[in-house]
Amino acid sequence: MSYFKSVGKIAFEGKGSDNPLAFKQYNPKEIVLGKPMEEHLRFAVAYWHTFTASGADPFGVGTAVRGWDYADAMDQAKARVDANFEFLEKIGIPYYCFHDRDIAPEGNTLQETNKNLDTIVDLLEANMKSTGTKLLWNTANMFTHPRFVHGAGTTSNADVYAYAGAQLKKSLEVGKRLGAANYVFWGGREGYDTLLNTDMALELDNLARLFHMAVAYASEIGFDAQFLIEPKPKEPTKHQYDFDAATTIAFLQKYDLQSKFKLNLEANHATLAGHTFEHEIRVAAINGMLGSLDANQGDLLIGWDTDEFPTDLYATTLTLYEVLKAGGLGNGGINFDAKVRRGSFEDEDLFLAHIAGMDSYAWGLKAAAKLIENKVLDNVIDNRYSSFREGIGAEIVAGKATLHTLEQYAMQNNPIQNLSGRQERIKLLLNEAIFNV
Amino acid sequence: MSYFKSVGKIAFEGKGSDNPLAFKQYNPKEIVLGKPMEEHLRFAVAYWHTFTASGADPFGVGTAVRGWDYADAMDQAKARVDANFEFLEKIGIPYYCFHDRDIAPEGNTLQETNKNLDTIVDLLEANMKSTGTKLLWNTANMFTHPRFVHGAGTTSNADVYAYAGAQLKKSLEVGKRLGAANYVFWGGREGYDTLLNTDMALELDNLARLFHMAVAYASEIGFDAQFLIEPKPKEPTKHQYDFDAATTIAFLQKYDLQSKFKLNLEANHATLAGHTFEHEIRVAAINGMLGSLDANQGDLLIGWDTDEFPTDLYATTLTLYEVLKAGGLGNGGINFDAKVRRGSFEDEDLFLAHIAGMDSYAWGLKAAAKLIENKVLDNVIDNRYSSFREGIGAEIVAGKATLHTLEQYAMQNNPIQNLSGRQERIKLLLNEAIFNV
Amino acid sequence: MSYFKSVGKIAFEGKGSDNPLAFKQYNPKEIVLGKPMEEHLRFAVAYWHTFTASGADPFGVGTAVRGWDYADAMDQAKARVDANFEFLEKIGIPYYCFHDRDIAPEGNTLQETNKNLDTIVDLLEANMKSTGTKLLWNTANMFTHPRFVHGAGTTSNADVYAYAGAQLKKSLEVGKRLGAANYVFWGGREGYDTLLNTDMALELDNLARLFHMAVAYASEIGFDAQFLIEPKPKEPTKHQYDFDAATTIAFLQKYDLQSKFKLNLEANHATLAGHTFEHEIRVAAINGMLGSLDANQGDLLIGWDTDEFPTDLYATTLTLYEVLKAGGLGNGGINFDAKVRRGSFEDEDLFLAHIAGMDSYAWGLKAAAKLIENKVLDNVIDNRYSSFREGIGAEIVAGKATLHTLEQYAMQNNPIQNLSGRQERIKLLLNEAIFNV
Amino acid sequence: MSYFKSVGKIAFEGKGSDNPLAFKQYNPKEIVLGKPMEEHLRFAVAYWHTFTASGADPFGVGTAVRGWDYADAMDQAKARVDANFEFLEKIGIPYYCFHDRDIAPEGNTLQETNKNLDTIVDLLEANMKSTGTKLLWNTANMFTHPRFVHGAGTTSNADVYAYAGAQLKKSLEVGKRLGAANYVFWGGREGYDTLLNTDMALELDNLARLFHMAVAYASEIGFDAQFLIEPKPKEPTKHQYDFDAATTIAFLQKYDLQSKFKLNLEANHATLAGHTFEHEIRVAAINGMLGSLDANQGDLLIGWDTDEFPTDLYATTLTLYEVLKAGGLGNGGINFDAKVRRGSFEDEDLFLAHIAGMDSYAWGLKAAAKLIENKVLDNVIDNRYSSFREGIGAEIVAGKATLHTLEQYAMQNNPIQNLSGRQERIKLLLNEAIFNV
Repeated sequence: MSYFKSVGKIAFEGKGSDNPLAFKQYNPKEIVLGKPMEEHLRFAVAYWHTFTASGADPFGVGTAVRGWDYADAMDQAKARVDANFEFLEKIGIPYYCFHDRDIAPEGNTLQETNKNLDTIVDLLEANMKSTGTKLLWNTANMFTHPRFVHGAGTTSNADVYAYAGAQLKKSLEVGKRLGAANYVFWGGREGYDTLLNTDMALELDNLARLFHMAVAYASEIGFDAQFLIEPKPKEPTKHQYDFDAATTIAFLQKYDLQSKFKLNLEANHATLAGHTFEHEIRVAAINGMLGSLDANQGDLLIGWDTDEFPTDLYATTLTLYEVLKAGGLGNGGINFDAKVRRGSFEDEDLFLAHIAGMDSYAWGLKAAAKLIENKVLDNVIDNRYSSFREGIGAEIVAGKATLHTLEQYAMQNNPIQNLSGRQERIKLLLNEAIFNV
Repeated sequence: MSYFKSVGKIAFEGKGSDNPLAFKQYNPKEIVLGKPMEEHLRFAVAYWHTFTASGADPFGVGTAVRGWDYADAMDQAKARVDANFEFLEKIGIPYYCFHDRDIAPEGNTLQETNKNLDTIVDLLEANMKSTGTKLLWNTANMFTHPRFVHGAGTTSNADVYAYAGAQLKKSLEVGKRLGAANYVFWGGREGYDTLLNTDMALELDNLARLFHMAVAYASEIGFDAQFLIEPKPKEPTKHQYDFDAATTIAFLQKYDLQSKFKLNLEANHATLAGHTFEHEIRVAAINGMLGSLDANQGDLLIGWDTDEFPTDLYATTLTLYEVLKAGGLGNGGINFDAKVRRGSFEDEDLFLAHIAGMDSYAWGLKAAAKLIENKVLDNVIDNRYSSFREGIGAEIVAGKATLHTLEQYAMQNNPIQNLSGRQERIKLLLNEAIFNV
Repeated sequence: MSYFKSVGKIAFEGKGSDNPLAFKQYNPKEIVLGKPMEEHLRFAVAYWHTFTASGADPFGVGTAVRGWDYADAMDQAKARVDANFEFLEKIGIPYYCFHDRDIAPEGNTLQETNKNLDTIVDLLEANMKSTGTKLLWNTANMFTHPRFVHGAGTTSNADVYAYAGAQLKKSLEVGKRLGAANYVFWGGREGYDTLLNTDMALELDNLARLFHMAVAYASEIGFDAQFLIEPKPKEPTKHQYDFDAATTIAFLQKYDLQSKFKLNLEANHATLAGHTFEHEIRVAAINGMLGSLDANQGDLLIGWDTDEFPTDLYATTLTLYEVLKAGGLGNGGINFDAKVRRGSFEDEDLFLAHIAGMDSYAWGLKAAAKLIENKVLDNVIDNRYSSFREGIGAEIVAGKATLHTLEQYAMQNNPIQNLSGRQERIKLLLNEAIFNV
Repeated sequence: MSYFKSVGKIAFEGKGSDNPLAFKQYNPKEIVLGKPMEEHLRFAVAYWHTFTASGADPFGVGTAVRGWDYADAMDQAKARVDANFEFLEKIGIPYYCFHDRDIAPEGNTLQETNKNLDTIVDLLEANMKSTGTKLLWNTANMFTHPRFVHGAGTTSNADVYAYAGAQLKKSLEVGKRLGAANYVFWGGREGYDTLLNTDMALELDNLARLFHMAVAYASEIGFDAQFLIEPKPKEPTKHQYDFDAATTIAFLQKYDLQSKFKLNLEANHATLAGHTFEHEIRVAAINGMLGSLDANQGDLLIGWDTDEFPTDLYATTLTLYEVLKAGGLGNGGINFDAKVRRGSFEDEDLFLAHIAGMDSYAWGLKAAAKLIENKVLDNVIDNRYSSFREGIGAEIVAGKATLHTLEQYAMQNNPIQNLSGRQERIKLLLNEAIFNV
């Protein structure tokens, strides 16, 4: 059966088209910097936002009435599977991502819950085979159920920790079975609301222990997906432990986990932490930790995670510029961790929103490629740091300088001449590069 | 000569007093948790805010007309030395802190500048001997002069980097000569305004190189002060590299510097980074990186560093609670990195403001001691995490659990019982503990 | 039947008590500034947070399992009535507040919905008579149901506007019947997410029209409650029209509604708008618009409405200082628009949280009274502005000055002498006033 | 003499050009929507940022070494006049704006200060005549000098108030003499740092009195410039009274000043207040209060006024869309209240930055015109609100509806059908409209 009867296959029609259900920028086979767009972008659909969410917010119930809203939870879960694969095929997206509880409902016991999961995973597996779609990553939802009220890997209750471990075990097995390219850890309620009742040292030690167990078990079952941690600074807890890329890297280094994990970075999480998305990507890249991206956008005048579809071309361009300079995303991809607005409650909005995101990312890819091909920013950098390629600068970079040699040099080098950083000019160049693509 | 003729020695007069120029809470010799208050608190005066600053802000010139505002820069510098020691003695603070350029003006060459510095250091040394006051820490100002427009250790100009190295060398020598207990690195303009013209990888590598040179030179000259990095997320640059405690720890780990550095944490920097001050202290403490504190407070409705004198008793209590639980500050102390408001431009305000800060910290110390003696929060924590002291919890903490054993346990442990976190009750307990001291 | 069997009547036991289920500060009959505490404070319970809410948040389902969670919606609604009056009696709070949809479920038609409402209002009326409790205010929930997805009084759909009018009519009738002292308008979804699809002029005109209709209808039925608007800057919409006190006053002035409305101010809404709560109260007071208070507190490091129980004594003191200086709240009161944290899911937390809020407000009342009795701040103000009570200052205030007379005066008045604003000193005085109560 | 010898007249060269000192979008005579670009945009240079500022920030001294940095203050002031007119001519901007203290230094007395002012005003007048340039607006700087430490029109010191009145009188005379099209009031230090020492009611009454005096005096001398208030929420004071457009309108309405004043809105001030710039413009427009614009941009991750040159094309497009829909700026214009970054310290950066701003605004103008010509957003609005043009909706808008008629309608109108708000689709349309100009 079809859940999106009114919508056909979305095709590339190019700039002239006035068909809202067509791509004007995203042409999957078009070659950009020597590779088809689709290989650069590796788009994924987020199961939770697209097939599980209802449009509820803290002040209102769900608005979206979907075709798959059956009364029986397992019937609904099965219908979502059908909707997912129909959607992937029509929109032309090759990957999807899910939490375990997005795809199948909890039962009364863990045993029942796992059984529900197995039933749905069978369906997913069959559909993936028949359609050729793939799992970019899966993860475990260890934050929605009341048992996780005080966290999962950082809970104050050992029974909950044990439950989390069991859920994680199953989730790794599911990932292995469906051939997930990555496995994500997002710190749901891993954080605290007040230090007054929190043993941060114990909680972080326990979290590291759980990650080591996950590494060991994945190795045991031969699950070779890239493990990814997804930083977020706050929400739902006031302080999430994986605040941002740097904080997460510090944690991984401390607990000797850095060789087993990379980062899944999200745009809206970056800005909530006080950073641009490109900052977070740069930090990950120069530490060898760039894994995958959750593509969305926030509103910087708003203090919570809005998870909007990404349409800001400055952001998509600079995001992809960082990704291209870092050599691409490897196993990772671009997952639309984005939800249609509560007011965009029609099925067609699911397509329009993904088209908006995909076209904006395709536009950004072409603009970033132009920046790279024309060496717009490379020239700026090369000129600006040229003094580190010769003389005292080269000695510094080579690790040969000491405070003695620096003093000696500085004592006779007077006055010093600096050059303008030319930010205003560079920003106009960026406009020209992006918007004349 | 006296710069504060109208003010005498500030004494402890206790709660009943209505003398504004007296302490009502800070009694230096009073024993709290087995140690005199003054040993817990190790207060320091910030030379820059108290003797060098004028009250200028981005929209107005200085308002403070001080007795030491001589036309000649060296005369002024010498007068500030006198003012400093008179102030320390009258207020009863044993330590002070400075940047090199706070105490002596720049000359036309580095040689001249160093000569100016030596002249003033002679005076400081003599005064320290005669008064028994000490240097909590010194540091190098590598951000005010135009040469540092693009940073110092992370500049785009190798000549500036060399100059910074030379300045740092001299600054370490000054620290050694004056017996500084610590040496601080605050990342002035070490950061960026836009990634578009920034080579972050090179800049951070260079910064690490400078730190290694500093370690080597301190070792060479036998300067054994504790090295401290002071995190700040932004201002003056849009993105400062030492964003917060965790980011700084990640940097130190990456470049194998963690055994040589600790952190100098500042309250207002914490909140600008989206953290409470106590969060930053806890993060430092559980990583063995707690060094020293810059005591002040910001205004959370304001997005820049206001450096107000600390008077919020919730903050001073929780700050000292974290410090006491961490075993104290060791070499470190509590430096008032705080400035009188631009509207508090009279000399007497310098005393009133320090009294406000010192009384508020003394109040916080007594409240924190009460929290500890009565095990108010320890009992909360002990109860809340008790499940990790036996059974499956003890196995987890001992590192013996695996995903297999956790699953086995969870499968037969249904349902799970959680306990309330009781935040509202705990906050009232905090009120009672603090405000009935 | 009893829903809170384990909890008895909460009594005042005073400072020495270690009974968590007792007041230590709030003694309702204690005279403060000539009036019993309970008359100053006029506490109210918020029906929605205490009896309707579940502890759900955007990342998790409800955690609170209450005794009144019956499967049938009307059974549940009736049980909540019982719980409400049992709670009011045990905690000793004389008022409560509700939205229409808090107390009774929607039916399939407006007719059915109104019938449900009538059934419950009968029960409320009977209980109010038998217990002597009163309705501080009621209001209409015009934001939870999907029909209000684009707003109610500012919707883009005239059918929804008509529905809102009908709901409002009924709600005014309910208020009249239950003798509500006030009637509140909180702008639920009255705002916009993006200007791109918004006709702001039409929406605001329509909102004013609805308010005029409400005024007319209240007059028609003889409902003489004070009408109140509750400002909030954002959430759920990105931009709520009633941003803050000043914005709301501008709206009321423009549409000639200012004589019919006052403001219901909320602490957490104030801080989300970039103001302190005391700022909002002052603005309302000097415009003759202070109506009632929603007591809670936010977390300034967090960008959404956390609606925490108020425990910050600085805030409660300054709130009540403003209220006392404004001559009290008149018809208004102090409604705990606050929810127990999701982790405080036990029934007992409902009591502990209200005790925390009530004790903290009682503490603030006593501190504010002390500030007033000792003229701590009045003296500061009197001295600071004394120049406006004589000479040129008196002429200015009397409206007799012109630019000519000011110039004449200024030309011969050189130099000008200013006085320190003494903020640091005043903040220490505040500590002493508050915390030695 | 020439201060910008290396730079010639900036010409329009169009999209193909790679000359950084040329316009690619701004073609002053190009007709857009029936009017030359230059008439739509009415650009102005801000004297203070361009000729008076040094690049100092709270952590560093000035970096810009300009040709006009003479030791004698009046020599410097005269040189700035020459620089101004050379700059205006070369960049092709017809207007400029200044504060009185930007153009001439203070003397020891108000008399001397006014004499300095007169000398420079003579020069300005002569240059304006010879070059045909005009004064968009002037204003009085009543915040930089220490006398204004506690404000000017809202000072706690009547002597300072008198001085402010005298300064304002002179400033109005200067405006009249130079034919200023507008006169601006920006609330420098009109606000407070803490309510604890502030009499808000008196301060606002006094401010209104000063405005009435200004209105009277302007009328007396026949100065018919449009009076403008420039809202800003904070900085330098923690709370500026003219927080935003709505707050300012409330103030003007209360004191019966709304017919004499309009608003000068600034982009960075809008975002500091939690609004978009287009929100502020819309609010002003629908209240008949849109006066003039201060064009710049902030950084939403930064909490202070960065006053960057505007290069964000989303912002320039939506700004000009609002302006065009409001019927243009009338007497007002687009003043670049923007400063080159501290790192952009070369003279050439002054040109490059203005070009960046002008090209970005020209781009925005063309994009906004396209949105209007193609009715992109008008169609969205027309469809979305169509229900208010007939039936019950038309009655509502006509003011004929009552709660009775609305109830009657709603009772028989079940179910209600809403339409999607289509935000995601509209944002992609915006991309296409803007960036394919």
